[in-house]
Amino acid sequence: MQAPAAPNDVAENACAALEQLRANAPRVHCITNAVAQNFTANVLLSLGCVPSMTLSPEEISGFVAGSDALLVNLGTFDAERREAAGLAIDAAAKKIPWVLDPVFVDRSAQRADFARTLIGRGPAVVRLNRAEFAALAGTDATTGALAAFARESKTVIGLSGETDLVGDGVRIARVANGHALMSRVTAMGCAASAITAACLAVEPDTFVATVAALVIAGVAGELAGEKAQGPGSFAVAILDALYNLDVATLKTRARMTA
Amino acid sequence: MQAPAAPNDVAENACAALEQLRANAPRVHCITNAVAQNFTANVLLSLGCVPSMTLSPEEISGFVAGSDALLVNLGTFDAERREAAGLAIDAAAKKIPWVLDPVFVDRSAQRADFARTLIGRGPAVVRLNRAEFAALAGTDATTGALAAFARESKTVIGLSGETDLVGDGVRIARVANGHALMSRVTAMGCAASAITAACLAVEPDTFVATVAALVIAGVAGELAGEKAQGPGSFAVAILDALYNLDVATLKTRARMTA
Amino acid sequence: MQAPAAPNDVAENACAALEQLRANAPRVHCITNAVAQNFTANVLLSLGCVPSMTLSPEEISGFVAGSDALLVNLGTFDAERREAAGLAIDAAAKKIPWVLDPVFVDRSAQRADFARTLIGRGPAVVRLNRAEFAALAGTDATTGALAAFARESKTVIGLSGETDLVGDGVRIARVANGHALMSRVTAMGCAASAITAACLAVEPDTFVATVAALVIAGVAGELAGEKAQGPGSFAVAILDALYNLDVATLKTRARMTA
Repeated sequence: MQAPAAPNDVAENACAALEQLRANAPRVHCITNAVAQNFTANVLLSLGCVPSMTLSPEEISGFVAGSDALLVNLGTFDAERREAAGLAIDAAAKKIPWVLDPVFVDRSAQRADFARTLIGRGPAVVRLNRAEFAALAGTDATTGALAAFARESKTVIGLSGETDLVGDGVRIARVANGHALMSRVTAMGCAASAITAACLAVEPDTFVATVAALVIAGVAGELAGEKAQGPGSFAVAILDALYNLDVATLKTRARMTA
Repeated sequence: MQAPAAPNDVAENACAALEQLRANAPRVHCITNAVAQNFTANVLLSLGCVPSMTLSPEEISGFVAGSDALLVNLGTFDAERREAAGLAIDAAAKKIPWVLDPVFVDRSAQRADFARTLIGRGPAVVRLNRAEFAALAGTDATTGALAAFARESKTVIGLSGETDLVGDGVRIARVANGHALMSRVTAMGCAASAITAACLAVEPDTFVATVAALVIAGVAGELAGEKAQGPGSFAVAILDALYNLDVATLKTRARMTA
Repeated sequence: MQAPAAPNDVAENACAALEQLRANAPRVHCITNAVAQNFTANVLLSLGCVPSMTLSPEEISGFVAGSDALLVNLGTFDAERREAAGLAIDAAAKKIPWVLDPVFVDRSAQRADFARTLIGRGPAVVRLNRAEFAALAGTDATTGALAAFARESKTVIGLSGETDLVGDGVRIARVANGHALMSRVTAMGCAASAITAACLAVEPDTFVATVAALVIAGVAGELAGEKAQGPGSFAVAILDALYNLDVATLKTRARMTA
């Protein structure tokens, strides 16, 4: 059922997305949790994007309408953000792509229910980890289960882990970049989702954009890991790495396989 | 119409404000957006000030009454912060100076309306960037337009940009300090507004206090830029620079002209 | 009235708690203020713990029930967090230990009242500074006053200061670790409270767990202070220090006396 992606083309296009980010400075509106807001904004600014974060029902539709992509992160699942998510998705619908990050749905049945409702509203990408995938899909994240869930949900799945998996139901890609300290800094997954939203703003192939985001995050993580002495300096170094990252480095470092 | 400020006196007094911050450790209450709260608190602590951040209607009046200056930042324009702003400005009125930072009013008509209402309530300073000025004043930020808007609004305008402009309707000053990475770290403008509030607590001439704040922020930014390898290390280095900054360095580095 | 703790045993057990943190990776649910959320999460992750931060009434009980300890920090005293605190303490009662951090009760009578109500609900530990102690106990924090307040409140008191004091009403310990820059970084006290919650999850003697937390925080602060050039690099270095800290270093560095 799954055609292998043409890995060279995907890798080539994914790396090119970085140049598009620099050139286009897309606006990315983020509904994200309070823990992640500052780091997410700094990740996007480091890449040359323009983040906005308002949750106010009076103005969020206008902010989303003026943006190039939307991130909906469920990390703090309060009433304010649930309302904001509904309005933002209305404003995004059929105009700009959006990413769902169903943080910690494995810890909360209510949050998992809300995530399922949002998946029904057509995210371009769902970016999540293995435990969150299992909570939503009801099964472990094999490549087959991932493809099946992507097809059913009519979305691309970006699964973070030791090796990341990206699937759109037909194509599948593995991204083996990254660093162990990424799991010791809060909001690192949220940041990967924000980068995914940014890449969607500049790369029309959703699958390629998702691969691009995970390669960018993973390579920046590796570069940061070479300089860091722990999670504190790692979080600083990954912002520097995102800012300094160039396409040549990305191509050399990308460990992407179909 | 505009008398040039006596630049030597202004520069001298602006630099002296730093010593007053260290000596007096003013309390600065901040209504600011969730993205900026942590960085703003750390900026104020680095300068020796005592920040507080509560938004609770039950207690914000007491916090403001016990503070030496107030910051009202519209970066996340939610109902909670709008109510908090009203109560805080009531408590501040005619007792302590307050600064308005009308973040992103160029992206939201509702927020611009709210900012105009707050300007009518008498902020000592409005600190903003060129796009925000244009949205509120209806014209580009020439020195003439800035002076006119300051006079109409009966406030001092602190305009951040490649060269900062400060005007009170009569005097005008230019501050040419700063570093390109300041635009790649979130909440850097919010931090400049918080420093402005802190300087108002120790320098009675509002114009001089605003110049002081932009010189302090700009010089710290330059010092940070000399050490940083990107926006991550820049955000760290500017806190160190604010902490270590002395009046002699400030005087040597200040690039202030009338 | 006060029996001296057996300092060698307490120190030994306190240092051993660090190994338990690494081995058990306890889940710590945190109700904390928006200023502190990101840093608190990173402190817990650096120690190998799993933080969660949701405030939603729909799901907080489930998160707490799945956690090993709870932190209730009053740093931003809004209605949402007051409701969350009530629900979380209900879920914690008699199942998992919880820590109260009554931030800034010296600045707000309403917040002090709320803190007193929460103390009546049975926190394992109240972690606070001298001004906050004085506001709640109505007297300065002598060792006698601290012991009396601990007995009345049926809780352990962890008092931060130049020398930290820990008392359970019978035993008393002094921890002389720490660094001056800890008072120049926001949320450092909040982080100490979070570490206390984490230690409660792995060390059944509440008094020992509280000593452990203050020794861990203080030694990490000293190690960070040796590398830092100001508060920005200090906040980074303390996360690295917490990550790299081992029991041998802790034992060598701990300055704990009965």
